[in-house]
Amino acid sequence: MDYSKLNGLIPAVIQDAASSEVLMVGFMNEEALAATRRTGFATFFSRSRNTLWMKGESSGNRLQVVDILVDCDDDTVLVKVKRLGDGNVCHTGERTCFFRTLDAAAS
Amino acid sequence: MDYSKLNGLIPAVIQDAASSEVLMVGFMNEEALAATRRTGFATFFSRSRNTLWMKGESSGNRLQVVDILVDCDDDTVLVKVKRLGDGNVCHTGERTCFFRTLDAAAS
Repeated sequence: MDYSKLNGLIPAVIQDAASSEVLMVGFMNEEALAATRRTGFATFFSRSRNTLWMKGESSGNRLQVVDILVDCDDDTVLVKVKRLGDGNVCHTGERTCFFRTLDAAAS
Repeated sequence: MDYSKLNGLIPAVIQDAASSEVLMVGFMNEEALAATRRTGFATFFSRSRNTLWMKGESSGNRLQVVDILVDCDDDTVLVKVKRLGDGNVCHTGERTCFFRTLDAAAS
């Protein structure tokens, strides 16, 4: 993987393996991607807290890895997951972080 | 939108509106997102060339915007598109930029 373009980070797109819904986008550093592979649960690097965090570690809404795909220039991953817990991925309680259209967000 | 976290850029996930396949991830600045909305075709900011580029402008494989969604903290967009031209999105000629699993890429 090429971590050089974003100061050690790559975007990680999280997609529901069953419904194909895009659930969220987070960032991983090399350690977070290794933890994701080792644990089998999506783990990100928090830019604001400067630490690794396993999504859903406290809420139970973890994201179980089904498959990890890499893009053509090795600077982005697409993680297909199974939603655990109540399946609400967004911290707002929504099913996905992408619950508004751009027009709705701007208005 | 919040462009402050990545020096003026936001990740833009491109998803086929019909098949729900994730096709690519690019970056947009405010101008690229405005151009995407104005033209109706996905337009990115090229970090290497420091300029806007409309995907498929020369190949004809443009990505026609069907819908644009925003994530919960306004720092990522999900652009649902219709593939024009031959529908091959990746510069390698593949249908999507995510055509390898991580294990295949690493080996």
